[in-house]
Amino acid sequence: VLQVLAQSNYRPNAMARAMRTNRTGTIGVIVARITNPVYPELLEILGRKLALTGHRTVVWDSETGGEDAAIDAIVEGLVDGVVFTTATRNSGALRRAIECAAPVVLVNRTVDDVPCDQVTTDNAGGAAQIAAYLMTNQRQRIGLISGPLHASTIRDRERSFRDTLKASGHKIAPELYHQVENISYKSGNAAMLRLLELADPPDAVFCANDVLALGALDAARRLGVRVPEDLWIAGYDDIEMASWDAFSLTTVRQPFTDMAHLAIDLLLARIGNMASEHKTYCLPSDFVIRGSTARTPVRRQAR
Amino acid sequence: VLQVLAQSNYRPNAMARAMRTNRTGTIGVIVARITNPVYPELLEILGRKLALTGHRTVVWDSETGGEDAAIDAIVEGLVDGVVFTTATRNSGALRRAIECAAPVVLVNRTVDDVPCDQVTTDNAGGAAQIAAYLMTNQRQRIGLISGPLHASTIRDRERSFRDTLKASGHKIAPELYHQVENISYKSGNAAMLRLLELADPPDAVFCANDVLALGALDAARRLGVRVPEDLWIAGYDDIEMASWDAFSLTTVRQPFTDMAHLAIDLLLARIGNMASEHKTYCLPSDFVIRGSTARTPVRRQAR
Repeated sequence: VLQVLAQSNYRPNAMARAMRTNRTGTIGVIVARITNPVYPELLEILGRKLALTGHRTVVWDSETGGEDAAIDAIVEGLVDGVVFTTATRNSGALRRAIECAAPVVLVNRTVDDVPCDQVTTDNAGGAAQIAAYLMTNQRQRIGLISGPLHASTIRDRERSFRDTLKASGHKIAPELYHQVENISYKSGNAAMLRLLELADPPDAVFCANDVLALGALDAARRLGVRVPEDLWIAGYDDIEMASWDAFSLTTVRQPFTDMAHLAIDLLLARIGNMASEHKTYCLPSDFVIRGSTARTPVRRQAR
Repeated sequence: VLQVLAQSNYRPNAMARAMRTNRTGTIGVIVARITNPVYPELLEILGRKLALTGHRTVVWDSETGGEDAAIDAIVEGLVDGVVFTTATRNSGALRRAIECAAPVVLVNRTVDDVPCDQVTTDNAGGAAQIAAYLMTNQRQRIGLISGPLHASTIRDRERSFRDTLKASGHKIAPELYHQVENISYKSGNAAMLRLLELADPPDAVFCANDVLALGALDAARRLGVRVPEDLWIAGYDDIEMASWDAFSLTTVRQPFTDMAHLAIDLLLARIGNMASEHKTYCLPSDFVIRGSTARTPVRRQAR
């Protein structure tokens, strides 16, 4: 076979290894919108953990041509398993991976009814905590800047934030709600500029993730609206930038290190045993109060 | 052959495609320290351009176990070519790629005497412009926060900044120079905190890249040192964050889009013709004056 392959100009090393172990030693990680700092932070932790367990990491960005490369690598067995950090119901790579019975784990976002291991955090609980905190502190005009609801994280946060307000007789005025198409500093910035132009602007805004909140904070800075004296802003994720002095953002911390480590543990166990039951893990999150809100700190934490 | 391969449990799709075209349609991109926003920004542009030219993109992070995966893929011909964004003389993947005669292009950082196409920008010219600007505006105590000199970008900026000062009879006092081991917000922050604790602190600091400068700006913010009234800060790269209101950083813009597009054009041409002469391209950069410095704007630009 080797001789035939050599004549056909194929790849003897890859073949030799695959024939020997049936494993490649490589794990693929799929991200989207790599310029959202959540994903570089997750990637760095995933990559370090995989290196520690003797694996090689290949990364695909599904928004810039990586989806097809991922599908090929999965179908052709060029990776032993795949970590999805931004899975949605529409992900072609996820569908093909499941069809091929490739070992798969979802981390951060989850997708209902997909037969694979999934790791998420208590997005509903975190958003409820923010809603309760804003109401406890007598915020009167509460706004929400949200994003695409096909992302389970955003969907769960928005739903729980609304439900918690509603349970106490509050609701979000329609003009205080913005749903951005793409999650970015720019879209959060534009949404907050519009909110602050209102005749009766909000006195507190929850942004469904930190990147939106950084843009929102800068919109207030640009217009000279004082945070937290005139406006409270809260985000979600606790990316590294949230703790920078420039922002000092109140937020809910997703435990990225625990999430990434658990996801890799599950994936490696799955590679060893495809038959075991699939599980979804929901890790607890921490409420982190910083300078973008004030009063009644439930507890105060440095990052 | 196909039957033998199928029996040997090998990958018929990859083989069939390789036999048909001898090309994989996939390009590898190597980054390091993905949490430095320069690399996500470059990656996004490279990925988009590759998708437009019908290619798939695979990314390796050389700092978290990606170097070995890259070497394997290069040696085994699983990619048609490789883009290095953070090459240094010590890069094992670069050495192996050259040994294997794989099509290679370096972008951002360059390495002398490596036989491949290289794309960089006028780092020396940009740093000289900052030095001249600080002297023209009567800055008296000029500091420098630099990084590892095995990165050609940092080396060229530091050398040119020092030489330009020296040519006008200025020099950097030893206590106003900090060289950080890792380029990050945290290291820039720590270096600036030390500079501002001096009995005779600097009135202007050039940071060899923007990420260092963001940390430096926050150090001034924390200590209540007014920028630009008491302290001028300049960076290098013009990452997206440099233009945010929270920072408003004077910097030198590297034309990432032009750099990435030229690099891909060169790589695809190289894949078509391995024999043509290797070239190094040096693109011009733009000086961008924002709120972290003041007076005598040579020209003022929005991003």
